[in-house]
Amino acid sequence: MSIKLKYDRIWNFNAGPAAIPLPVLERVQQSWFNYGGTGMNVMEWSHRSKEYDEIHNDAVARVKRICGLDDSFHVLFLQGGASTQFAMIPMNFLDGGTADYIHTGAWSKKAIAEAKYFGTVNLAFDGEAVEFKRLPKPDELKLTPGAKYVHITSNNTIKGTEFFEFPQVDAPLVADMSSDILSHKVDFRQFALSYAGAQKNLGPSGVTLVILRDDFYKTAKNEGVPTMLKYGTHVEKNSLYNTPPTFGVYVLREVLAWVEENGGLEGMEKQNREKAELLYGFFAENSGYFKCPVEKGSESWMNVCFRLPSEELEAKMISESKAAGFSGMKGHRSVGGLRISMYNATPVDAIRDVIAFMTEFMKNNG
Amino acid sequence: MSIKLKYDRIWNFNAGPAAIPLPVLERVQQSWFNYGGTGMNVMEWSHRSKEYDEIHNDAVARVKRICGLDDSFHVLFLQGGASTQFAMIPMNFLDGGTADYIHTGAWSKKAIAEAKYFGTVNLAFDGEAVEFKRLPKPDELKLTPGAKYVHITSNNTIKGTEFFEFPQVDAPLVADMSSDILSHKVDFRQFALSYAGAQKNLGPSGVTLVILRDDFYKTAKNEGVPTMLKYGTHVEKNSLYNTPPTFGVYVLREVLAWVEENGGLEGMEKQNREKAELLYGFFAENSGYFKCPVEKGSESWMNVCFRLPSEELEAKMISESKAAGFSGMKGHRSVGGLRISMYNATPVDAIRDVIAFMTEFMKNNG
Repeated sequence: MSIKLKYDRIWNFNAGPAAIPLPVLERVQQSWFNYGGTGMNVMEWSHRSKEYDEIHNDAVARVKRICGLDDSFHVLFLQGGASTQFAMIPMNFLDGGTADYIHTGAWSKKAIAEAKYFGTVNLAFDGEAVEFKRLPKPDELKLTPGAKYVHITSNNTIKGTEFFEFPQVDAPLVADMSSDILSHKVDFRQFALSYAGAQKNLGPSGVTLVILRDDFYKTAKNEGVPTMLKYGTHVEKNSLYNTPPTFGVYVLREVLAWVEENGGLEGMEKQNREKAELLYGFFAENSGYFKCPVEKGSESWMNVCFRLPSEELEAKMISESKAAGFSGMKGHRSVGGLRISMYNATPVDAIRDVIAFMTEFMKNNG
Repeated sequence: MSIKLKYDRIWNFNAGPAAIPLPVLERVQQSWFNYGGTGMNVMEWSHRSKEYDEIHNDAVARVKRICGLDDSFHVLFLQGGASTQFAMIPMNFLDGGTADYIHTGAWSKKAIAEAKYFGTVNLAFDGEAVEFKRLPKPDELKLTPGAKYVHITSNNTIKGTEFFEFPQVDAPLVADMSSDILSHKVDFRQFALSYAGAQKNLGPSGVTLVILRDDFYKTAKNEGVPTMLKYGTHVEKNSLYNTPPTFGVYVLREVLAWVEENGGLEGMEKQNREKAELLYGFFAENSGYFKCPVEKGSESWMNVCFRLPSEELEAKMISESKAAGFSGMKGHRSVGGLRISMYNATPVDAIRDVIAFMTEFMKNNG
């Protein structure tokens, strides 16, 4: 089989940076040389212009509206990715104390390593013991009384696990939502701080969304923290203390508009549930050929990991998938196998097409 | 008068983010939906793909070629702007010691404030005493024997001064070149570290170019520095430890290609000299009407500040300049007056047009 899409595009299953909704790309392209009569591309605008201000503030307002947040939350657009947040969070909030980290994979491991520069880390759950094939049950968590915060990774791109319910904890809950933010309904008010690199569900890489609840923000340490690494700097200046990644914020704004036009979190959840049911359903029906390493109840809707009967067949499917017009189906190098990453921008049709492709592959390589 | 440009674009004199060369915008637009048969926009590529790797490494190679650097220099693409470098440099290299800062304006002031978190700052020159209207003479510098480094700001966007010769110092020389990098011939080998936010001469905001000489890099502190803030992390991983701002690096690569196609540093210098001679020459010929506050010998080729006979006339010219198709002629809010920022992407024609506009304005408001 071979698919045929508009502009000869392919189905993009990259884990991130990943697909951008095609209507967003079209909108950006249409005003490329001269946005709204300004005579410039958005990337040529001053970040102090009223035109940029409108886009920036519209992006903030859309995040709040989509996530159901009032003015007790601050919405920031920073740089440096989730990796920089791994350090900024303890730098601002740990201050020699103890924080609980729920360790569910490669990303929480990195977050933990940075926290150790600034205080004590307690592993509230160590997923290593279960090979990261499942998430903790609520009664498994070993929480520290008086912890400065509890850190959780909502979706694990490499192992393919995802939280749909978050633990009820006394300490402020901090969530790395880089790979599943805005993909389904979540009560964002439960998070003292949530953050996400944009490059999966929000836009191009180079923008980090941070949502900060005011009561937690007020506990931040200020002394000794360099200006750019202090949340206060960015809260006080609406992320405009220095030049923000203006073009990235603009594309992110267009992605947020697309999310709202398509039903907000509810609309995203409906589509992502359908994709997940289709794909996991297909694997379950053909469980003699396809194996999902993740335990039932912990499966990610965003990153679906699977194995074939042999590594030879896996290599063959990866190679043939590319030729058939699918990108990014190779599993992460640390785990092998295959992976289909299907963020908000991936339509249901892409999943139907890849299931048709895999069905044919199975028939030919049975 | 009113100008008429392709795509109804205007002449962009913004101080940064600023104009992108039109041929670069055209090239990016042409492969918007499907770059080189990949079926994706570059921003949808994995940063671990061979396609992205090629662009990334080509950008590194072009920086080295344009700047005349061999493999004893590391070229990094980071995030967070020059403002983050203000903190990263002392965090990695000061370590409780003393550094000399040459204070020539608002940007050096910010760099100095961050250095104080990590050690002692000696003001080798305090431009405040001369209202930042000129740069130091070589014999005015009060250097510290054994300083960890000497920090200099090569071009001052707000006050409109620029170094064309750099002081000969014993300590490693560190230069913030955000607003004049690649605009004229410079021996880059004299800098232990040079850095620049991309948004003036290199591309969109959100990418920071850092050029690090290996002998200086080897003196960096490693203990206690969080991973993302350690130069070593980015040197060892070729700026791919975490997801780089891939689209920004791609546009930057296209800007570098445009620089090379137009004669490299020599070509840029020729064009920028012509623009500066035209504009400062026009002001000198009409010195009864136009005043440049910067002292002779310190004038910037990038940011030309000037005053009119009254603030009323200034407001009028700013307002009429917009209507005539020129953007960004208002001086920085901290100094008032007018400013024309003319980075590499601003062609000589833009300067001819603005001189014609100002000539007419002077005639009508004499």
